[in-house]
Amino acid sequence: MIKELLNQQFYMIKIGIIGIGRMGKIHLENLSRKIEGVNLIAAVNPGEDGQKFALQHGVKNVSKDVDSIINHPEIDAVVISSPSSTHAEYAVKAARKGKAVFCEKPIDGSLEKAHETIAEISALNVPFMIGFNQRFDVNFSRVKMALSNGEIGRLRNLHIISRDPQPPPISYIRTSGGLFRDMTIHDFDMARFIMGCEVVEVFAYGNCLIDPAIGDAGDIDSATVLLKFENGAMATIENSREAVYGYDQRLEVFGSKGVIKVDNPLKSHMKIVADTGTLSDRHLNFFMDRYQLSYLEEMKAFITALNQKTPMPVSGEDGLKAMILAEAANRSLVENRPVQINSIN
Amino acid sequence: MIKELLNQQFYMIKIGIIGIGRMGKIHLENLSRKIEGVNLIAAVNPGEDGQKFALQHGVKNVSKDVDSIINHPEIDAVVISSPSSTHAEYAVKAARKGKAVFCEKPIDGSLEKAHETIAEISALNVPFMIGFNQRFDVNFSRVKMALSNGEIGRLRNLHIISRDPQPPPISYIRTSGGLFRDMTIHDFDMARFIMGCEVVEVFAYGNCLIDPAIGDAGDIDSATVLLKFENGAMATIENSREAVYGYDQRLEVFGSKGVIKVDNPLKSHMKIVADTGTLSDRHLNFFMDRYQLSYLEEMKAFITALNQKTPMPVSGEDGLKAMILAEAANRSLVENRPVQINSIN
Amino acid sequence: MIKELLNQQFYMIKIGIIGIGRMGKIHLENLSRKIEGVNLIAAVNPGEDGQKFALQHGVKNVSKDVDSIINHPEIDAVVISSPSSTHAEYAVKAARKGKAVFCEKPIDGSLEKAHETIAEISALNVPFMIGFNQRFDVNFSRVKMALSNGEIGRLRNLHIISRDPQPPPISYIRTSGGLFRDMTIHDFDMARFIMGCEVVEVFAYGNCLIDPAIGDAGDIDSATVLLKFENGAMATIENSREAVYGYDQRLEVFGSKGVIKVDNPLKSHMKIVADTGTLSDRHLNFFMDRYQLSYLEEMKAFITALNQKTPMPVSGEDGLKAMILAEAANRSLVENRPVQINSIN
Amino acid sequence: MIKELLNQQFYMIKIGIIGIGRMGKIHLENLSRKIEGVNLIAAVNPGEDGQKFALQHGVKNVSKDVDSIINHPEIDAVVISSPSSTHAEYAVKAARKGKAVFCEKPIDGSLEKAHETIAEISALNVPFMIGFNQRFDVNFSRVKMALSNGEIGRLRNLHIISRDPQPPPISYIRTSGGLFRDMTIHDFDMARFIMGCEVVEVFAYGNCLIDPAIGDAGDIDSATVLLKFENGAMATIENSREAVYGYDQRLEVFGSKGVIKVDNPLKSHMKIVADTGTLSDRHLNFFMDRYQLSYLEEMKAFITALNQKTPMPVSGEDGLKAMILAEAANRSLVENRPVQINSIN
Repeated sequence: MIKELLNQQFYMIKIGIIGIGRMGKIHLENLSRKIEGVNLIAAVNPGEDGQKFALQHGVKNVSKDVDSIINHPEIDAVVISSPSSTHAEYAVKAARKGKAVFCEKPIDGSLEKAHETIAEISALNVPFMIGFNQRFDVNFSRVKMALSNGEIGRLRNLHIISRDPQPPPISYIRTSGGLFRDMTIHDFDMARFIMGCEVVEVFAYGNCLIDPAIGDAGDIDSATVLLKFENGAMATIENSREAVYGYDQRLEVFGSKGVIKVDNPLKSHMKIVADTGTLSDRHLNFFMDRYQLSYLEEMKAFITALNQKTPMPVSGEDGLKAMILAEAANRSLVENRPVQINSIN
Repeated sequence: MIKELLNQQFYMIKIGIIGIGRMGKIHLENLSRKIEGVNLIAAVNPGEDGQKFALQHGVKNVSKDVDSIINHPEIDAVVISSPSSTHAEYAVKAARKGKAVFCEKPIDGSLEKAHETIAEISALNVPFMIGFNQRFDVNFSRVKMALSNGEIGRLRNLHIISRDPQPPPISYIRTSGGLFRDMTIHDFDMARFIMGCEVVEVFAYGNCLIDPAIGDAGDIDSATVLLKFENGAMATIENSREAVYGYDQRLEVFGSKGVIKVDNPLKSHMKIVADTGTLSDRHLNFFMDRYQLSYLEEMKAFITALNQKTPMPVSGEDGLKAMILAEAANRSLVENRPVQINSIN
Repeated sequence: MIKELLNQQFYMIKIGIIGIGRMGKIHLENLSRKIEGVNLIAAVNPGEDGQKFALQHGVKNVSKDVDSIINHPEIDAVVISSPSSTHAEYAVKAARKGKAVFCEKPIDGSLEKAHETIAEISALNVPFMIGFNQRFDVNFSRVKMALSNGEIGRLRNLHIISRDPQPPPISYIRTSGGLFRDMTIHDFDMARFIMGCEVVEVFAYGNCLIDPAIGDAGDIDSATVLLKFENGAMATIENSREAVYGYDQRLEVFGSKGVIKVDNPLKSHMKIVADTGTLSDRHLNFFMDRYQLSYLEEMKAFITALNQKTPMPVSGEDGLKAMILAEAANRSLVENRPVQINSIN
Repeated sequence: MIKELLNQQFYMIKIGIIGIGRMGKIHLENLSRKIEGVNLIAAVNPGEDGQKFALQHGVKNVSKDVDSIINHPEIDAVVISSPSSTHAEYAVKAARKGKAVFCEKPIDGSLEKAHETIAEISALNVPFMIGFNQRFDVNFSRVKMALSNGEIGRLRNLHIISRDPQPPPISYIRTSGGLFRDMTIHDFDMARFIMGCEVVEVFAYGNCLIDPAIGDAGDIDSATVLLKFENGAMATIENSREAVYGYDQRLEVFGSKGVIKVDNPLKSHMKIVADTGTLSDRHLNFFMDRYQLSYLEEMKAFITALNQKTPMPVSGEDGLKAMILAEAANRSLVENRPVQINSIN
């Protein structure tokens, strides 16, 4: 009798997740415990650690076989959080089976293959969303809403600061695709999201100011990128692989009627006033702390768009355009000249 | 084979929860999903809504029979979040069965019965914790740590501001025991927690400045309480049943080497600069937003103390002392004079 | 010919100043250099240092003879910044000669004599202003304006923090009249100014938490005072003779539509973000830094009221009422009971 | 006898000032009333308004004849605040007479003439200071001190925001030399001052986003400039001719050990918390409010350097280098390419 209380009244979207590493665990936990109207029925991971995590969270079908999800007749949507090199393949396979796809960025390391993948999925006409979680951060999404309400009028300038607490291992740097593709990619997407307008030109300065080993690995660790938008507005992005004071993620947008800023959340709201001055608490450590809720909101937005059959909040095109900006920044850095976006393809 | 991955290596504390209303749901969710090393095996609630909630969270034994928990041989600890009038009875029953008890405040509406209950449980020598969640708020617990480290020297003054966004219904006011027992009780505990020292005298002003209906119901809606501590330090508490700008929970403690303050978290870290000035976001709505994480930390602290066999972080004595301060404030208000704490019993 | 450029078109109020110590120098400098429409024509001081200061600032008649100002036929207004014990005598003398009077607080150390002095000057019907400079601080005057505009509705609570950076010498303490008359006096006036309403009852706690020598001198160094207003609103004042982090002067007033706060200005708007957190600059050192401009605005307000024949912005009655509150606080402290204001006279 | 009190014990530097317009009045008031050890004995201005101002401030020799200052045998130093087109001529004339020179920026509208002027004055070996007042702002000078103390380690990035409240008249725009020479010039100097290092390359974007009439007058009203320093560090400057919320002058510098920021002072330290959020006061209106004290500190620094025979805190070379950066930015804007500084001369 009591069990009857649990009978469902409405349709639950059935999900399979591919890849249960760091990012996959976040999505799996959100899908299994924190989102209404969804049923995570299958999880695939090559290693045991991820499989165990899925079982502990009550996922029924857990295996290492990707096709068990791709071919599962009841699965409506697939979440892809496997290694980047597999994104395009799995996304296309799932789309061909008519499944909605949520895919972590990037679609592919190669701009050409990303183009093809997006084109094919687009032709298949299935819902497809790229995982740019920062758009769903409570701060940035409120900024977007305020801008859409015209609260600061027409936009003129944007400044984004994005600094990691410390550099990744050199081994990671080597395969990362470089700072612009690995780190600035989020800021390129944020710039387009905030300005609501396309970039026409990119100029990039970059340097190795933190660790010469990063330079030896062929990358930079510090960069400043200037973007020119089609409406004449401008943006700057400041990136660093190291900030001793913690993760630093801010932006400030200036318009004809004012400024909107996002400052960093801190570890607490405690302040100590002493003879040296007033000390606020430290920044959060890294993106897992700062953006934890944004991953949940991101996944909720995917599910909501599926339920309501509205356009995906981040499209494949969005994923592609951020990659093009990274490519333009790379060329600008190498050739020390402003690069037109329409010259990239 | 995969299932073997789930085999437990260590002992899991077995918990039963009594009462799955607003507070019980918070504890149930935390115990079932967010705390390691614990196994919530039974839940009791008279109504179906709470029972359904327990089943959905995977609790195996769900019923309306309190004895199914009290008498359960495997249950190590009981969490009591039933209506206040039942706290003392259930706590004593569980303690007599040798179970550890986590009990929501207040122990009882009557100071006399609270005394007796604490005395009996104390004699039974079981772990017993009262639910003053605000001590576990990240901000206030960091303040406590900083004070313990001597960061601002010897303490001189404390100021606590605690304002609810809007008054509860008059029906609630009538049975609440009055503002000091219902609302200030948290601030009395906080004052003792922060100052690390006992109050010796209370002087209270109170008034009905918000809604005359609250006065008609025999209560006040606004109060200022002055506390004198045994070491000569002083504290003030400002309470209001209404703050149009949202929940307001701050404190500031002044010592020989500086000041420590806790300000309110806001809905976001966005600011808008316009011709009227710089506008920060709104306060959080109410305690469910502000103190959400504190309930989790509180329960973790209970479990940790059980596991490590250390003293409970909030004792029955703590619960009693806050009640005594409320009683003293009531007398002070009625008699318009400072009231000695040692005159209350 | 060029000299003709300097011919005055309008009447200049002629001022004499009595007393050129610390406070007198501030007034003298403001009157001689920073205020339009006024002509400081005479200055009196017993010692040479003050006289030299007056001469350097271009005052023509400089002497040690108070009557040279009191009897000067052209002088319209007298500024009294001599030692407190002489205030009443000089104020009455000047008023009897029909001169407007600006007098530093207090009117007199004795409440009885202050009563008589105010009564006599009031009967003489000359403009009379008491120097409560903090009302003219840019922050507090903006608060008053916002409150008058009803920006936070009906007022419920006020909290004032006033802490000096370090205690004065014990010799000063001995003759100061005690903390409430010497230091809290400003806060009593501020409370009345902000609340726009009279106090009906005072309860005061005080203690010697900083330096036992202050206690030996018969005074307290730390106090908390609770005020009840005739409309039911409440206020608390926190005082300390020592704050290692610098001068601390804040207030916060809570009303039916919101809160207005004044925080401390800091030495600069620089912040340093490091691995320990974000450090803002130090507080200002003391009242000479914090209230420098308020003395100028205060004197401008005196001159403006004279020119426009409007009521003085701070009356003798205001000076008296602050003294009565100090007296009530003293009695409350000694007798440990709330004291009715109408019992003081 | 009293007059003897005024006898000077030490040498007073004798100053003449040329040009008593908006800026000249600031310098004149500071020199006549607010700086010790200096005697402003002569002032020259073509119009009566400035002459009257000088007389009112007690300057003895007031005329329209520049030579009365240049040839005055007792004058040690000349302050030049006449129109820009006369700076070079008067500076050279005064230097030839062996006088120390404080000259408002720019040395000249023409980079070539500025070069020649600096070279000639340099050969004459007289103290020569250019008026970049912002270096003496309490905030920026504290930043410089903190950086010199190594508080944030090696510098990596600088971001400067400089926005005027509203555009100047089009007539001013036409003769201003363009945004980079007129407005960004301060930021170019600030960038060099803060980074303590020379710029090697400039890239500039600019646009007309505020008023098309500014574009019609051949100028831009919005700009973003990217600087590359010889040590590999980078800086960005954001400029706008209009900010509806008031004057906006901030910077933020990022180094290996942290960040130092300067935020804007506001009109007061009052905040209003209401149901819309927490509102801080407005920004200051314009540079006269924001930088008032910096002009005093600047002039004090000039006098101190003269007295102590130390190097001038801002040299002619500094004036020239800021002009070169402006020239580079102009070229970059026109040619849409990064411009090497060593290509400008």
